[in-house]
Amino acid sequence: MDKALIIHGPNLNLLGTRETSIYGGVTLDEINSRMAEYGTKLGFAVDAVQLNGEGAIVDAIHAADAVYRGVVINPAAYTHTSVAIRDAIAAVSIPFVEVHLSNIHAREAFRHTSLTAAVCAGQIAGFGPDSYILGLEALRRILGAG
Amino acid sequence: MDKALIIHGPNLNLLGTRETSIYGGVTLDEINSRMAEYGTKLGFAVDAVQLNGEGAIVDAIHAADAVYRGVVINPAAYTHTSVAIRDAIAAVSIPFVEVHLSNIHAREAFRHTSLTAAVCAGQIAGFGPDSYILGLEALRRILGAG
Amino acid sequence: MDKALIIHGPNLNLLGTRETSIYGGVTLDEINSRMAEYGTKLGFAVDAVQLNGEGAIVDAIHAADAVYRGVVINPAAYTHTSVAIRDAIAAVSIPFVEVHLSNIHAREAFRHTSLTAAVCAGQIAGFGPDSYILGLEALRRILGAG
Amino acid sequence: MDKALIIHGPNLNLLGTRETSIYGGVTLDEINSRMAEYGTKLGFAVDAVQLNGEGAIVDAIHAADAVYRGVVINPAAYTHTSVAIRDAIAAVSIPFVEVHLSNIHAREAFRHTSLTAAVCAGQIAGFGPDSYILGLEALRRILGAG
Amino acid sequence: MDKALIIHGPNLNLLGTRETSIYGGVTLDEINSRMAEYGTKLGFAVDAVQLNGEGAIVDAIHAADAVYRGVVINPAAYTHTSVAIRDAIAAVSIPFVEVHLSNIHAREAFRHTSLTAAVCAGQIAGFGPDSYILGLEALRRILGAG
Amino acid sequence: MDKALIIHGPNLNLLGTRETSIYGGVTLDEINSRMAEYGTKLGFAVDAVQLNGEGAIVDAIHAADAVYRGVVINPAAYTHTSVAIRDAIAAVSIPFVEVHLSNIHAREAFRHTSLTAAVCAGQIAGFGPDSYILGLEALRRILGAG
Amino acid sequence: MDKALIIHGPNLNLLGTRETSIYGGVTLDEINSRMAEYGTKLGFAVDAVQLNGEGAIVDAIHAADAVYRGVVINPAAYTHTSVAIRDAIAAVSIPFVEVHLSNIHAREAFRHTSLTAAVCAGQIAGFGPDSYILGLEALRRILGAG
Amino acid sequence: MDKALIIHGPNLNLLGTRETSIYGGVTLDEINSRMAEYGTKLGFAVDAVQLNGEGAIVDAIHAADAVYRGVVINPAAYTHTSVAIRDAIAAVSIPFVEVHLSNIHAREAFRHTSLTAAVCAGQIAGFGPDSYILGLEALRRILGAG
Amino acid sequence: MDKALIIHGPNLNLLGTRETSIYGGVTLDEINSRMAEYGTKLGFAVDAVQLNGEGAIVDAIHAADAVYRGVVINPAAYTHTSVAIRDAIAAVSIPFVEVHLSNIHAREAFRHTSLTAAVCAGQIAGFGPDSYILGLEALRRILGAG
Amino acid sequence: MDKALIIHGPNLNLLGTRETSIYGGVTLDEINSRMAEYGTKLGFAVDAVQLNGEGAIVDAIHAADAVYRGVVINPAAYTHTSVAIRDAIAAVSIPFVEVHLSNIHAREAFRHTSLTAAVCAGQIAGFGPDSYILGLEALRRILGAG
Amino acid sequence: MDKALIIHGPNLNLLGTRETSIYGGVTLDEINSRMAEYGTKLGFAVDAVQLNGEGAIVDAIHAADAVYRGVVINPAAYTHTSVAIRDAIAAVSIPFVEVHLSNIHAREAFRHTSLTAAVCAGQIAGFGPDSYILGLEALRRILGAG
Amino acid sequence: MDKALIIHGPNLNLLGTRETSIYGGVTLDEINSRMAEYGTKLGFAVDAVQLNGEGAIVDAIHAADAVYRGVVINPAAYTHTSVAIRDAIAAVSIPFVEVHLSNIHAREAFRHTSLTAAVCAGQIAGFGPDSYILGLEALRRILGAG
Repeated sequence: MDKALIIHGPNLNLLGTRETSIYGGVTLDEINSRMAEYGTKLGFAVDAVQLNGEGAIVDAIHAADAVYRGVVINPAAYTHTSVAIRDAIAAVSIPFVEVHLSNIHAREAFRHTSLTAAVCAGQIAGFGPDSYILGLEALRRILGAG
Repeated sequence: MDKALIIHGPNLNLLGTRETSIYGGVTLDEINSRMAEYGTKLGFAVDAVQLNGEGAIVDAIHAADAVYRGVVINPAAYTHTSVAIRDAIAAVSIPFVEVHLSNIHAREAFRHTSLTAAVCAGQIAGFGPDSYILGLEALRRILGAG
Repeated sequence: MDKALIIHGPNLNLLGTRETSIYGGVTLDEINSRMAEYGTKLGFAVDAVQLNGEGAIVDAIHAADAVYRGVVINPAAYTHTSVAIRDAIAAVSIPFVEVHLSNIHAREAFRHTSLTAAVCAGQIAGFGPDSYILGLEALRRILGAG
Repeated sequence: MDKALIIHGPNLNLLGTRETSIYGGVTLDEINSRMAEYGTKLGFAVDAVQLNGEGAIVDAIHAADAVYRGVVINPAAYTHTSVAIRDAIAAVSIPFVEVHLSNIHAREAFRHTSLTAAVCAGQIAGFGPDSYILGLEALRRILGAG
Repeated sequence: MDKALIIHGPNLNLLGTRETSIYGGVTLDEINSRMAEYGTKLGFAVDAVQLNGEGAIVDAIHAADAVYRGVVINPAAYTHTSVAIRDAIAAVSIPFVEVHLSNIHAREAFRHTSLTAAVCAGQIAGFGPDSYILGLEALRRILGAG
Repeated sequence: MDKALIIHGPNLNLLGTRETSIYGGVTLDEINSRMAEYGTKLGFAVDAVQLNGEGAIVDAIHAADAVYRGVVINPAAYTHTSVAIRDAIAAVSIPFVEVHLSNIHAREAFRHTSLTAAVCAGQIAGFGPDSYILGLEALRRILGAG
Repeated sequence: MDKALIIHGPNLNLLGTRETSIYGGVTLDEINSRMAEYGTKLGFAVDAVQLNGEGAIVDAIHAADAVYRGVVINPAAYTHTSVAIRDAIAAVSIPFVEVHLSNIHAREAFRHTSLTAAVCAGQIAGFGPDSYILGLEALRRILGAG
Repeated sequence: MDKALIIHGPNLNLLGTRETSIYGGVTLDEINSRMAEYGTKLGFAVDAVQLNGEGAIVDAIHAADAVYRGVVINPAAYTHTSVAIRDAIAAVSIPFVEVHLSNIHAREAFRHTSLTAAVCAGQIAGFGPDSYILGLEALRRILGAG
Repeated sequence: MDKALIIHGPNLNLLGTRETSIYGGVTLDEINSRMAEYGTKLGFAVDAVQLNGEGAIVDAIHAADAVYRGVVINPAAYTHTSVAIRDAIAAVSIPFVEVHLSNIHAREAFRHTSLTAAVCAGQIAGFGPDSYILGLEALRRILGAG
Repeated sequence: MDKALIIHGPNLNLLGTRETSIYGGVTLDEINSRMAEYGTKLGFAVDAVQLNGEGAIVDAIHAADAVYRGVVINPAAYTHTSVAIRDAIAAVSIPFVEVHLSNIHAREAFRHTSLTAAVCAGQIAGFGPDSYILGLEALRRILGAG
Repeated sequence: MDKALIIHGPNLNLLGTRETSIYGGVTLDEINSRMAEYGTKLGFAVDAVQLNGEGAIVDAIHAADAVYRGVVINPAAYTHTSVAIRDAIAAVSIPFVEVHLSNIHAREAFRHTSLTAAVCAGQIAGFGPDSYILGLEALRRILGAG
Repeated sequence: MDKALIIHGPNLNLLGTRETSIYGGVTLDEINSRMAEYGTKLGFAVDAVQLNGEGAIVDAIHAADAVYRGVVINPAAYTHTSVAIRDAIAAVSIPFVEVHLSNIHAREAFRHTSLTAAVCAGQIAGFGPDSYILGLEALRRILGAG
């Protein structure tokens, strides 16, 4: 099986317990379980990590390069502010798929643009936890059959 | 089976024959075939239409409301210029999923923003013809099992 | 009696059935009936047309010039995006009155400016179906007593 | 009869005597007379006040709340600069109709946007003294038959 | 006892009776009473004035210089538009503390910036009537023990 | 002889009858006659089409690809607003020359920039009907001797 | 002798007593005395008024029209914010000369542009009290010998 | 006693030893001591933490939710750049008061706007170490008597 | 024969020897020869001058007025930065045609706008050395038959 | 007598012969004569130079420093584009007065701002040839009696 | 010998192994070796640290103050986003030299500006690993001979 | 020995005699002497030229191409305004190193961006006369050992 990594950005550890009107009631553990299960169908052994620090996410991206065949990343708030994460993704060779739980295009103006999407294969936003599922599906198709 | 509609925006009729370095070599007919086939798996009877006119797309959106349970739309160039299509999507009650073949976030600055995504359920961009497949998958999940 | 034309722009065919919290519950047919009745009082034989296409509206403006003494136009979404309709109005000699059902100045920022108002006699916005009635009244006053 | 107030903003006391190419040759007294006469037809006892000071207009708006059923206001220059008048209109409960003699959308760019229109019921611009008549007509329709 | 002045800007005379969802239900008289009482604890004899005119506020600032040891000012709408009040504060020698009832940073974009705060000692916003109390406390600390 | 197409954009059907101070008194038929005659000298069989719709122009561009060796296009109002026409020109392989009757650089600011010129071979503006003649001459030189 | 008016805008009553590093140590009375004396040489009977209110300055401009042959105005802070004063100057027929004590082009960016200068004959800035003397001299030359 | 947390953002560990002309000569320890003492008067047991990392501050905000009744936060440099901290504050349920030692409105333009203030109860800036004291006072008033 | 002048702006002396991927391999001497030859056909005696200095181009424009019937100018880099050349063209009475070798609309954003085109008869860009030929042809048509 | 220099910028050599509707019918020689005569009254021996080149004006500014007590400069087009002239004026120690014939604040937007005025003593604009006379008068007052 | 510190910002640990077309093939270890060797010539004992976290870099800057005589810093991505690092550099007393491997002025627009350079002694960009060597040389010259 | 050229831009001839607080007290001759001496160490025969004219600098750049192996250029004011110099550098084949005496990133906003740096190898700013020394050192390293 191919190894795939899910990187959850800042504040996603609170998922399902806070601001459920925006982000829904599913917890991060539940998302990770669904991803593991769905990954199995796609031929992926899925690992997941949640990190609140920009530098920590840069580190995780670097480390992923040698271990995983691809990454599904939700950079959350850093989507709109982090050149460092953009540069990290550009610096490694495995493909990244950017996902967002909420439809960022329908929220505050500062969330309409992404510094990181330009160096990912693509972006999926607005489908709640299913954004992750679709992101993994996209990764499978980028990599070809497992 | 639920009925789903695919709306292809301007210039997509040329797909697979022009600018293949950006859009790839798959033709629109091939995409429609794949969508029909994949739709069957998801419980969708899939129709597709390609339209170059802004007003014609507005008409198609209006007409879809009474017939289809949801729409996968690639507004192409109109993504960035059409308030009329935005208003049409907002005016009907079935869900829309916006898809793009290319990663619009990695192209010219005027393609980074979308007037239409804010009134769709979400946006998927950058995965070539698979953006459509993922869009149909997203629609299935929004509507619940068929 | 003088002939007057009402041009309804994109999506107004759905009036009264969709987004009634913004646009109210009156249908386009009802507006047209009210306009015909009110027109009679003002000495106007009122025709009405609803068009979703930018080019079709340009055509209608050209055609109106030889037939009507003036036009009440609700360019809807094209208010904010269409130089073609602006140029069409500037190119014909009969007066135009721009009307909007909703108070566009109180909505999204991209609805605060109008490309078309500068070439109309004036603009009336925010009074629901009465914006049309006021627009016809304005046209009567521009043309002088019928 | 319902009481209605007309608030004329800065420099309108000079109407009909200055810059007649922009604002026309009708004086403010003539406008007020027409409004009184037209008001009678609509079931309005119409008062009018002309004020050059921003604070004085704020005062007039406050005072109107207890006395009048609605206001037709031409904020003139303050349309484009006064948050104080905007806040005053928002703070009282009777409806306001914003009117302009000239078509502000066809003049200098700084006159294209209105700070005050967003808190009025709507805006009418470009019909000369008839903008006031149309404004009163609009007010009648907002309030319902007198 | 030191004398301190409270300057309330435009529309604050309506406090507690209008838009209570934004500004709360406390009246201006109640705020002034609380300030007088709290001022006594701090060694301040507190006067208060409410003014709707920009020029009147400029006059009050000039007059305060010879009489008061400091001023708590809520410039309200003028915060965002008045260079004249900014210049007046800069021209006198006693310290000013700018206060706002609502959290202006969470409201419309045009309320996020302040022309006047740069020439005050500091700014306090978002605590309802307590913004005034905190402003007086701040003034006491700027001036030193009474 | 080589075949060449002239595409006239929106409102150009009114040429010579309206706004002659800006666009001159020559009609579209006269321009087309001149172009046919001048084309003969250059070895071109010239066809011409005038279209008011954005989608119709996209269609015409697609259709031209298989039939004509090059196109002289005056996108008129769509020059400044149409990404769809830009994408259509980029998608076909024959060369386009953009022409304008008036000097767009000397008119309103929104006419100073062109979305379409970047994907044409070049742009010619300001010479009245001669802009078309020069455009055809340019096309001859791009294609080499007929 | 011709009558000329000097209008001093907001905060200029404090001249010579405050912020002398920017505005110098000369008082307004001294400026008025110098202007009276210098006016005599130029054939002007000079009156002067200082006003802190925007509306009051509008009133003074209106009143000046029938009495004075020209005005030297220092709009001070209102230079940068007042459309009302701009409109007042445009509405009267006598010439205005705008003057500033400090070099506004060398101060904060918001002082670099003037709403009022465009409707005055010209602007003089940066020469301290001599800006007024030069303004009166300019007025004499505009009006011709007294 | 209620527990309250003080979060000091980046570089505040150097307080009192560096750039004393901007930030004053009081050290962070002294501020914390004053806060502890003043907290006792208000019924608060006050803890304090100083963190230079954005992710570490996000962590601290998450952790505070279960332990403290409210937070006084000086996000320092992150005020102007961190969507992650904004999202963290929005995600927890206890109230935050934003404080700044210096008057950020009087410094470089990039310090005039705050990404974080919109999700705090309010903002206090410009009073040196007393900004913290006022912030704690504000927190007490938000929470009600201890 | 009429006399016509070609003004080549800065860096064009290097034409054909540098950056041939952008500007082509034709030298300035070759362009001048072609222009002389083509001019003869059009009834023009053609002179040419190449100048790197902004002031020198201003001088050349002034001098041309008394000697030549029209000018073909390629302001090159000064197109985007020189108000002085714009003012010089506006100050003389003979017509100017602006030409560019490359399609400036397809290059860096700062090359998309022209300060000088607004005061020329028109602009021709993108046809390599043929831009000059077309410019001379345009000049002939502006002046009428030689 | 003190020596003073007048520097006339680009295109001013054409004064009185071109665009007299903007710049008037007085020639540069006439202005220089008037300046010499008026200078005598003020105790100035006046020299004048007209230069079209930016670098030549920089040279003239440098050379003036050792010879003249002050300079009246009309930078014309370079007012809006030249950092080099700004830096030259800042680098020498004698005072400069910036003058303009036309009211630049009433012309195109790009003429409303001045790069050079910030390093001059002040700016005088809009009084035709009298702007120079007023500029010399200003210089006299800056330097004190001759 | 003086001690000098090199701070390498985010992603520089990957140097020489990734994106070698932009950053070259030299590894970070090789740069550090060259720096140590070159430092010896200049009288510097050179230490180096590479950090991906913004807060970690703030910490390193604070710690350096007591140990090193100066710092050569490549803030990489944080150059364009970090006020925290800017404030940290401003807060310590030893000099900083900012260096970049690539010519940031020739890359994406968001890399053209630097938040950190304003508080460093200067900036060196574009010379690959030699930027570091030049930075150390610059530091030697700032500090004087070792 | 290799030949290298130093180009000093406008106003640098005044170096060491004016504005020494910004630019220091070293004269241009001293810089040139130091450069000659340091050049000898690096294997460069160094020439230097100082020019105030934009066109003259363009000429010097063209001339340098055949004679020198590289150029150290301080475009001074033209850094921020000259497309002509940018195009000249791009047009020649020898490498350029841009240097600035002052830290332009810490000065007025219009000095923060460089039109010329993008076509140079790199930029060095802020080290006083040592910027030149470092620039020559950079040139040596670009060219390889002499």
